[in-house]
Amino acid sequence: MSLIQEKVNQAIEILKEQNMDMWLTFVRETSGVRDPVLDFLIGPNELTWPSALIFTRTGQKIAIIGNLEKESLERLNVFDEIIGYDTAVSALLKETITRINPDRIAVNTSRNNVHADGLTHAMYEFLREYLAGTPYAERLVSAEPVISAMRGRKTPAEQARVLKAVQITDEIFKKTFDYIKVGMTELEVGAYMHNLAREYNVELAWPAENCPAVNSGPDSPVGHNGPTNTKIERGHIVHFDFGVKYEDYCSDIQRVCYVLREDETEAPLPVQRGFITIRTAIEKSRFAMKAGIAGKEIDIISREIVTDSGYPEFKYALGHQLGRVAHDGGALLGPLWEKYGDSPNQKLEVGQIFTIEPGLAVDGFGYVGLEEDVVMTTNGAEYLGEPQREIILLKG
Amino acid sequence: MSLIQEKVNQAIEILKEQNMDMWLTFVRETSGVRDPVLDFLIGPNELTWPSALIFTRTGQKIAIIGNLEKESLERLNVFDEIIGYDTAVSALLKETITRINPDRIAVNTSRNNVHADGLTHAMYEFLREYLAGTPYAERLVSAEPVISAMRGRKTPAEQARVLKAVQITDEIFKKTFDYIKVGMTELEVGAYMHNLAREYNVELAWPAENCPAVNSGPDSPVGHNGPTNTKIERGHIVHFDFGVKYEDYCSDIQRVCYVLREDETEAPLPVQRGFITIRTAIEKSRFAMKAGIAGKEIDIISREIVTDSGYPEFKYALGHQLGRVAHDGGALLGPLWEKYGDSPNQKLEVGQIFTIEPGLAVDGFGYVGLEEDVVMTTNGAEYLGEPQREIILLKG
Repeated sequence: MSLIQEKVNQAIEILKEQNMDMWLTFVRETSGVRDPVLDFLIGPNELTWPSALIFTRTGQKIAIIGNLEKESLERLNVFDEIIGYDTAVSALLKETITRINPDRIAVNTSRNNVHADGLTHAMYEFLREYLAGTPYAERLVSAEPVISAMRGRKTPAEQARVLKAVQITDEIFKKTFDYIKVGMTELEVGAYMHNLAREYNVELAWPAENCPAVNSGPDSPVGHNGPTNTKIERGHIVHFDFGVKYEDYCSDIQRVCYVLREDETEAPLPVQRGFITIRTAIEKSRFAMKAGIAGKEIDIISREIVTDSGYPEFKYALGHQLGRVAHDGGALLGPLWEKYGDSPNQKLEVGQIFTIEPGLAVDGFGYVGLEEDVVMTTNGAEYLGEPQREIILLKG
Repeated sequence: MSLIQEKVNQAIEILKEQNMDMWLTFVRETSGVRDPVLDFLIGPNELTWPSALIFTRTGQKIAIIGNLEKESLERLNVFDEIIGYDTAVSALLKETITRINPDRIAVNTSRNNVHADGLTHAMYEFLREYLAGTPYAERLVSAEPVISAMRGRKTPAEQARVLKAVQITDEIFKKTFDYIKVGMTELEVGAYMHNLAREYNVELAWPAENCPAVNSGPDSPVGHNGPTNTKIERGHIVHFDFGVKYEDYCSDIQRVCYVLREDETEAPLPVQRGFITIRTAIEKSRFAMKAGIAGKEIDIISREIVTDSGYPEFKYALGHQLGRVAHDGGALLGPLWEKYGDSPNQKLEVGQIFTIEPGLAVDGFGYVGLEEDVVMTTNGAEYLGEPQREIILLKG
């Protein structure tokens, strides 16, 4: 069974579970604006003309698409009915929905999960117009619960891909730590990591400009920024944020090194203290992660450990889901800030993969941020790959 | 001046011309759903948290974004005001719009141009909520005219990139025609073209599965389908649809060959007749293309030449714009079918780049489709690269 067939079958199980009659993905010219859910439903194919992909909780799988694209959709062996057209989708869509007669139609609009929010405002308005005069225009609801569940609950095949991405990332980090010398710039180190990714034949998990982030010392700006001409010096914390994409699935990992001064054999106490604080925060948060707990309950654990230790609060969520994109949506290990919507209230589920990534600045040395990738099992959250348990000492 | 700076300045000129006070691009987690206009405004950068990019006809360039992304946006040297935030965008957005006090706010929702339709329904609703209680909630209008003009009117730097993409495509075609032997499958030929694209260090203009399309003989399905195991045989028309992306700008070209039978020195008359019909249609349509003419007037010329010659009407638009994507939006050389919306009514403008691509099937031989790329100048439409003037004869 292909991954597409596997995920579509999972989606139909989710429709049953959520008592949702029908799920409609309505798109056009997907090379321009691509509903992120299409990766699961049709893989890398594009749909040029207004197209409807319909799944019902009774198991129907229907596509209404331009005739010129029938052949490539048939090859997927996913849809049991493919209705082609040349000039107009509206009548076919209305007929098909009337035939299904759903009480609720889930469409891809979502306040809390951008990856369930692929329906543009204009396409939403078209849908309402096409269904005007039928009861169905008023039966559109958000498909967020359907898509969040489907994206979140990774099948074994999906978990294997993320694990492989994590392992490759670990190897690239190890080679990079061996390569670094005092006096190199952040940019040189970043370029070396890009070369390694090419050697491993993987894509980067986010745009190359900021992947990796490399921050050396206290003056390098931390955030979603790329490496700069800042040089790696003795007495610097060197911080990395990096991920790769293996067969469409991402890793996202942060690592921290310290460049020893000539008279040092270990990191200075403030650096060690920062590291231990972050490492403890991760472990305590991970330990608390169980199916059914809301993400905000996990976030607060790390947040309090960091602030109780006297550091400023980190200005972002503790962790996000990981999947086909580095920031996959749905339940978030985060605080209830406006920008995160309701996602910190959502519950953890078995099969979800999360990052855990608290951080803090150590005055005069640099930024300590670790990020580990974990998968939710019936026993709680388990590390994918080896976590960083000690600060990595670079001799320079 | 960078291409981003150039296009942003052009956008501000377009706001003046269209008497539009303010243009607002409102996005979030662009790695998941990416408004296609961002390529012009911030290049390959992503925006993670709800972010507003604002341009006014008085020349203001304002970004409201997450603090962690300030640094990378500052590096673009595009925005003269970058407002960062940690938790909530709504109050800052409301304040900024109130300060500008626009009569109309153009937002990225569009019925006719998917590349101007990057605002999701949920983000539209957020915007209305954030502006509730101000006069601005009712002042949202479609930015389609702004974006279509900006995407359509290619600057000299953009035209040079498309031209280069066209030239590389021509070279790949020539090498492919030399390579083809009777008995090869469509898939083998497609794989050879993929290798050439890698050698030229260019991306494909659309997904690799269907780029190129290769159709050999009368039984190969034409449309947005990839090559199959169908073998190239004597007496087949072999049809190609292929394009590359050079520095983010696309070509999109169709070519037609005929594989001579052992006793033949030229293509059979029905094949020649089909070719001449298509070639004539392209040349007549191109000749009629002048700034100010609606796209549908150009489409009907080719459509009538094909049907008047006794062939069935082609089931798609004669031509589309070309740019950062192979199917760029805005004015379309097409018929007024529902699926094309109002775009065939839109007027041609200097600087736009179009494909012209009529097609017909020749019974028993295969599909004749040519596609040429042309740029609108003050003198009308000029070919980018050399058009195909005669059917290419393959000795096999």
